[in-house]
Amino acid sequence: MKEFKNISITAPLGFKTNALHCGIKKKNADLSLIYSVVKAKAAGVFTSNKVKAAPVVIDQEQLRNGCAQAIIVNSGNANCCTGKKGKLDALSVVNALGKYLEIDNSDVLVASTGIIGKFLPVEKIISAIGSLAEGLSFDKSDLTAAALMTTDTFPKQAAVEINLKGKRVIIGAVAKGAGMICPNMATMLCFITTDANISSPLLKKSLRQAVDGSFNCISVDGEMSTNDSVIILANGLSSNSAIKDNSREFKIFTQALKYVCVKLAKMIVQDAEGATKFIEVRVEKAKTKEQAKAAAYQIANSLLVKTMIAGENPNWGRIPACLGASGVDFKDEKIEVFLQKKSVYRNGLPMIKDIKVLIKLLEKKDIEIVARLNSGKFEYTVWTSDLTAEYVRINTEYT
Amino acid sequence: MKEFKNISITAPLGFKTNALHCGIKKKNADLSLIYSVVKAKAAGVFTSNKVKAAPVVIDQEQLRNGCAQAIIVNSGNANCCTGKKGKLDALSVVNALGKYLEIDNSDVLVASTGIIGKFLPVEKIISAIGSLAEGLSFDKSDLTAAALMTTDTFPKQAAVEINLKGKRVIIGAVAKGAGMICPNMATMLCFITTDANISSPLLKKSLRQAVDGSFNCISVDGEMSTNDSVIILANGLSSNSAIKDNSREFKIFTQALKYVCVKLAKMIVQDAEGATKFIEVRVEKAKTKEQAKAAAYQIANSLLVKTMIAGENPNWGRIPACLGASGVDFKDEKIEVFLQKKSVYRNGLPMIKDIKVLIKLLEKKDIEIVARLNSGKFEYTVWTSDLTAEYVRINTEYT
Repeated sequence: MKEFKNISITAPLGFKTNALHCGIKKKNADLSLIYSVVKAKAAGVFTSNKVKAAPVVIDQEQLRNGCAQAIIVNSGNANCCTGKKGKLDALSVVNALGKYLEIDNSDVLVASTGIIGKFLPVEKIISAIGSLAEGLSFDKSDLTAAALMTTDTFPKQAAVEINLKGKRVIIGAVAKGAGMICPNMATMLCFITTDANISSPLLKKSLRQAVDGSFNCISVDGEMSTNDSVIILANGLSSNSAIKDNSREFKIFTQALKYVCVKLAKMIVQDAEGATKFIEVRVEKAKTKEQAKAAAYQIANSLLVKTMIAGENPNWGRIPACLGASGVDFKDEKIEVFLQKKSVYRNGLPMIKDIKVLIKLLEKKDIEIVARLNSGKFEYTVWTSDLTAEYVRINTEYT
Repeated sequence: MKEFKNISITAPLGFKTNALHCGIKKKNADLSLIYSVVKAKAAGVFTSNKVKAAPVVIDQEQLRNGCAQAIIVNSGNANCCTGKKGKLDALSVVNALGKYLEIDNSDVLVASTGIIGKFLPVEKIISAIGSLAEGLSFDKSDLTAAALMTTDTFPKQAAVEINLKGKRVIIGAVAKGAGMICPNMATMLCFITTDANISSPLLKKSLRQAVDGSFNCISVDGEMSTNDSVIILANGLSSNSAIKDNSREFKIFTQALKYVCVKLAKMIVQDAEGATKFIEVRVEKAKTKEQAKAAAYQIANSLLVKTMIAGENPNWGRIPACLGASGVDFKDEKIEVFLQKKSVYRNGLPMIKDIKVLIKLLEKKDIEIVARLNSGKFEYTVWTSDLTAEYVRINTEYT
């Protein structure tokens, strides 16, 4: 597997992109377009929040036919809690873009991120569609990666090349993070392009697996956005023979897709507002995968654990306390907790008594917490960040 | 119902208390004793965390007979994650106190709060028992209320008098809060005394009802301590005729108990570290009480909602987003959200467009958030605080 640098969604054959400022935000680019020169197979994974933004509802309908050719993305407005008008607004954008590009309206997807509860300034978006489409280019992935940034401090893109039966297949992706707490913008968006030849049901299956092992493993503040979207377009231009289910090629493709998603997911955590540490939480030997996940998230979302890591304050007792609060099955005297691979709690007893040794464990930027439940054989890993006063300051002052 | 000021656990007949510094903490009182001059009926409600501190395990066993006469409380050490030794340590304290006071060891309860994962300095506690018991007095409730404080900024006590068939019955209580995030001390403790004549099963029933409507309605940081304990002693000295189940007297007694508990619960939230606002979250018209509770806690524990209130940033869209994330039953287009009794979201649409009007709603110190789901007839109220940079600063710096 070969990796690309400084290029992402335009790395696969036949994908163009462009971004510009249309006036939703005061300054900086706020409108992007991702376009395949031929109709592509498409799949998406969306927020499971019951309150869904209008573009999420529209995309779920548009993706029923398993195809798409363009994705238009605005920042500065989430188009959420906007009722029927919000859906009509999103459809107006879809239809105007379909008409301009001369493609089926049903092949246009739309994504939004920004403030909730305000109507979309549709006219600003529609009047910018001409310039946006005319400027489409095979070498502007940097521009789109930057345009997606809201509270992000660096653009997030990744691309890899794999070989499927002698044919070169490329997967590229851009993402924007949720920052840590962003009162006005807390959405995770990711757009993935590939020139692989793959059916839409298999593309969906592959995407689900990749997302489960990547974006579904991160937590910044335990919040679930109304707009979270991961969308993939596969235009088949690599001319590999169609990927079959359960084949070696499906496995290679899914692994590569997951690799790209993990890379972006970790970047999102690294870019969490005010964060000074990257934390990997792994729960091992749980009774079920669901229990491993519940326990891992209980630790990863714990303000006490996050501030403890931020302060390099080795009060590891908070970790068994989280396990106990998570409601999963284990016996207290059988669990073991590790910080940076050192056992700190075993047989119901503290393992390291020297506070200086404990403090030293938390000095690094990358922190690993492992909790071994010894009640089964399942594990789950979550990536998260620490919690600092800086990010609360940023967000309480935000208006 | 008459209320007392500046007196609490010694307001009912026959209760003495004392507190002193025994050396677990560097300075300030760290050991308290609450004592009834006669054996009392007793009941407790404890943390549901699977990882329970040794004193919690001991008290649950000691309370099986429904009686107690003394409670000894230390701060500075939680005696949690300390294995069998931890339990033996707690029992040594119990036995030493029982012997000194010449009461049954089975009538002594113990509570601890402080750092997790360190063994209890038993010898310091036992050697202080003599002075502690000798100093017991009918007018030191102020001293004990102050001695319980850890990161609390003010002592928390309350007492009321009720009339049961012509007899004066008094209920008094002291509590310590969890602060907001306290890496080393995050325990909620509450000790209640009363001179009511009531059987232990009824005392337990009354306490459960009072706790459900008070301490189980607060949330500061969504963390569940390993040491949380609410204990009540009822010594019967008021000589009221024994309270009967489902009687008018039981109702009056439980209402008074709940009143005292609510008062202390609210004090705990008001004293949350760095907090600038007191927030009441009420979910109305939910399908079940469990759903109302789940939705209310999703809002009360949301960092996005807490920072929004702290920053007086009226991004109310975060409230429907929390409802959607909570997994409870409702239709987005049927819910209604109120801030300070003003409707901000209804029929899937924003109700107030003027940002200045919205900001003005959040200026007060006491904030009320109401979410009406319109999917049933149940409601639940949670009290919480806002989230400021100050409390994160306090806690990351804590070592």
